[in-house]
Amino acid sequence: MGNDYLEPPPAPFLDIKELTKWSFYRALIAEFVATLLFLYITIASIIGYAVHGDDECGGIGLLGIAWSFGGMMFLLVYCTSGISGGHINPAVTFGSFVARKVSLPRAVLYMVAQCLGAICGTGLVKVLQKSYFDNYGGGVNTLNSLYNKSTGLGVEIIGTFVLLYIVFSATDPKSNARDAHVPALAPLPIGFGVFMVHLATIPITGVTGTGINPARSFGTTVIHGKDVDWDDQWIFWVGPFIGAALAAVYHQVILRASAAKAIESYRSSS
Amino acid sequence: MGNDYLEPPPAPFLDIKELTKWSFYRALIAEFVATLLFLYITIASIIGYAVHGDDECGGIGLLGIAWSFGGMMFLLVYCTSGISGGHINPAVTFGSFVARKVSLPRAVLYMVAQCLGAICGTGLVKVLQKSYFDNYGGGVNTLNSLYNKSTGLGVEIIGTFVLLYIVFSATDPKSNARDAHVPALAPLPIGFGVFMVHLATIPITGVTGTGINPARSFGTTVIHGKDVDWDDQWIFWVGPFIGAALAAVYHQVILRASAAKAIESYRSSS
Amino acid sequence: MGNDYLEPPPAPFLDIKELTKWSFYRALIAEFVATLLFLYITIASIIGYAVHGDDECGGIGLLGIAWSFGGMMFLLVYCTSGISGGHINPAVTFGSFVARKVSLPRAVLYMVAQCLGAICGTGLVKVLQKSYFDNYGGGVNTLNSLYNKSTGLGVEIIGTFVLLYIVFSATDPKSNARDAHVPALAPLPIGFGVFMVHLATIPITGVTGTGINPARSFGTTVIHGKDVDWDDQWIFWVGPFIGAALAAVYHQVILRASAAKAIESYRSSS
Amino acid sequence: MGNDYLEPPPAPFLDIKELTKWSFYRALIAEFVATLLFLYITIASIIGYAVHGDDECGGIGLLGIAWSFGGMMFLLVYCTSGISGGHINPAVTFGSFVARKVSLPRAVLYMVAQCLGAICGTGLVKVLQKSYFDNYGGGVNTLNSLYNKSTGLGVEIIGTFVLLYIVFSATDPKSNARDAHVPALAPLPIGFGVFMVHLATIPITGVTGTGINPARSFGTTVIHGKDVDWDDQWIFWVGPFIGAALAAVYHQVILRASAAKAIESYRSSS
Repeated sequence: MGNDYLEPPPAPFLDIKELTKWSFYRALIAEFVATLLFLYITIASIIGYAVHGDDECGGIGLLGIAWSFGGMMFLLVYCTSGISGGHINPAVTFGSFVARKVSLPRAVLYMVAQCLGAICGTGLVKVLQKSYFDNYGGGVNTLNSLYNKSTGLGVEIIGTFVLLYIVFSATDPKSNARDAHVPALAPLPIGFGVFMVHLATIPITGVTGTGINPARSFGTTVIHGKDVDWDDQWIFWVGPFIGAALAAVYHQVILRASAAKAIESYRSSS
Repeated sequence: MGNDYLEPPPAPFLDIKELTKWSFYRALIAEFVATLLFLYITIASIIGYAVHGDDECGGIGLLGIAWSFGGMMFLLVYCTSGISGGHINPAVTFGSFVARKVSLPRAVLYMVAQCLGAICGTGLVKVLQKSYFDNYGGGVNTLNSLYNKSTGLGVEIIGTFVLLYIVFSATDPKSNARDAHVPALAPLPIGFGVFMVHLATIPITGVTGTGINPARSFGTTVIHGKDVDWDDQWIFWVGPFIGAALAAVYHQVILRASAAKAIESYRSSS
Repeated sequence: MGNDYLEPPPAPFLDIKELTKWSFYRALIAEFVATLLFLYITIASIIGYAVHGDDECGGIGLLGIAWSFGGMMFLLVYCTSGISGGHINPAVTFGSFVARKVSLPRAVLYMVAQCLGAICGTGLVKVLQKSYFDNYGGGVNTLNSLYNKSTGLGVEIIGTFVLLYIVFSATDPKSNARDAHVPALAPLPIGFGVFMVHLATIPITGVTGTGINPARSFGTTVIHGKDVDWDDQWIFWVGPFIGAALAAVYHQVILRASAAKAIESYRSSS
Repeated sequence: MGNDYLEPPPAPFLDIKELTKWSFYRALIAEFVATLLFLYITIASIIGYAVHGDDECGGIGLLGIAWSFGGMMFLLVYCTSGISGGHINPAVTFGSFVARKVSLPRAVLYMVAQCLGAICGTGLVKVLQKSYFDNYGGGVNTLNSLYNKSTGLGVEIIGTFVLLYIVFSATDPKSNARDAHVPALAPLPIGFGVFMVHLATIPITGVTGTGINPARSFGTTVIHGKDVDWDDQWIFWVGPFIGAALAAVYHQVILRASAAKAIESYRSSS
């Protein structure tokens, strides 16, 4: 039984040539704009929810906020997947780098573009609704005081593991070769995954939303600009990066069975 | 590497011949009926929500209203895309005109059909539930008094930009050539985009819903017919048209890279 | 420009031969079981919502009930479309008969199977939670006392028109010939249409849900069995049947342009 | 009229050879991890909902919990269907065994992996939020005291019947042969089915969620570890297994018409 599927080669660690192409810079612009829109819509939803919080049942509820994060990620992955791969999240970029799907310069510049986009998107919300933005916490991710730091870190690790597990499954080149519909449908489960993790995690890592996206945590904290906001910032970077790396390992070693395949091929040849 | 994809030619500015075809008038009827149903369902949802507002948590909530707008747009784009292109929104028609996808007479007559449909759809709600319609504001878009006019305008610009950015991405002829499933799936992200923008914007541009659709703002204001309703009407036309034009420029210049392609082809030939 | 698409011939008014086939009776069983499950899940959701109604915000809300009706219709159309066409609603069967898609005996027997299924599904809810079922109204469709009968009738007509308009668009044989993905995706917009109409209509035609499905109205009224329940029953049959017939006419005459095509072919031949 | 579709042969009752393959153990690992993530997200959502229950309307609501169960099942079936078939539920495994789709050792080991995954997933929630987990019931399925045991059993039977009915329809090899898009879309209706059953059943079989998944009921009860929790455990195993078997019979005998086909082929040959 031959193998009619060819694994794409891993991305080179450093690829100077891609830096000379317009499509590389277009991808950076697309990541910047998509992250800007992601933060604008989600943080405006959080502020609007908080404003209505004094009415009973007046707002969109925590369920509406979870939909906002998940739905926007679905849409933005859908719109940018053909241009930049549709990361819109430094944890996704980091996981893709660990899985050797993007080069180092692309990974670093994507993260820079995402963080700048997140700052500008949050900034737009502040410009448009200044007093509410300041009074209602600016959508900053801080740890709910009911939980300790290791809980926050654990929650971010598992949440990002769930997201990256879905990303790797939905974009697996072997499944895509087997079934032509998988790539067109991939943005839906990715967005749904963000929705699910928010349902589980909103009460724990900050009343104004879950992390699992360092650009989202960074942008809101830069714009809100209170000293205390920065204390937990590391949790929203370290946690997602550990979760992303674990998901990359799980997908490569178990699901794609790199290690097992090597052993099997050794056995059959001996 | 040749290019196996041929860009469709831009629509002519004025196309007399299309005015003689039945399919053109069928498209106008389809836009009229779809906008009528859009307003009927969404405004009835808003009035029903307001009627239940005195019970605690008795109604469908702001989340339900956001679903109503987004879900109906998904369905109506799905049902009319093969007949009229599925605009159901003067801002989408304007953006399509700026992107040279429809001719001027088609753009103008679509907008007229959409506005007439919006008037009739809102009128149906008024006929069926007169006292509630009048008492609960008729679903009119007015600016929440907590925000000033420039905030309202900015919010409408960005909201419509998000919607048109999704519309252009979902209906991009290059992606469609690459992947046959894109056009059949396009109505879903378009409807989801409307849902997302409503989650973020309902608290700002009027308690009874977001604009980003001038026909929806116009039809409700005509039927409700209070003098004060008209004061902010311009915001719900100027904002969406600016947002639609910006999205057309972003899609053509950056994502489709018209400008960059011209420069690259210049370089490679020299 | 030849026409590479052949319109399927209209179903015969009376087709004795189909009565001798097992697939015909399998379709009846499938309609019976699907309508049973539809009523079981949706009426149980309504009763559960009512039980929790005394807690503030304790239940799934009217939004949850609208999801229940729409989501179940999506699933059941998905599961039965290959076996019976996936009607699960006498109004859909009536509209299909008017559009000459099913024969008269099939239409009549489908409606009988659907009504029996609705009775059994509601009966199951009553058997399992007798006291709550009786105390909380049994999910019966009655007209909210705030509205008069002509409003109820109008709302049922328009709501069923919306549903059938989507059904005809989603199952249009011409679109299906053009795009192979349309039939596989059709159940989603049909279910979403039911969801949307419920968002708009729950507050008007009865606190326990919208009609637009005579089997659902009939089954609950039979099982709940109070004299007063039957007073408005005709509204939930006459309204949906008028709406379905109007949608059939709109789809055939305007969207499929039967009339216009005849005129055009006359012109081109003269 | 020949038959261009070949029924796949039933899975052997005992297949020693599959026990020697890495892909078999990879499937077990995938079931373990998927059930772990399923329990982690859903139970964390339940606990978070309970924590917010003291605020009015502060949490994600019962609707959010129903989304959590349904959405996670959609995602995990999507991610594991190509590796293990995407069961993530002993009732699905049992139904697949009854329908001769998996062998006995695979069925037994899948159930073991699912139960272990459920224990670990619930354990993770307990580790991260110990005090809340204990105070708010640990997401254990117990029968609401308002209902008696036969109601609980009946509700679990019908709920699992609905789920397995959808699973068999969505993965029917005949439909898949007819329409290439069915398998790629199958996870969506399966997840939606879980969502629907939870909307109907949450108020009855335990305030913290529905069963219809014995691993979910078992894992939470093991981790919560109160004696009283075990009293109703049998309901959440017997009910789902009966429902799964009934759905397998309904699908094979009526919808796939095994019996009728045999009779027909007998008639035509005689």
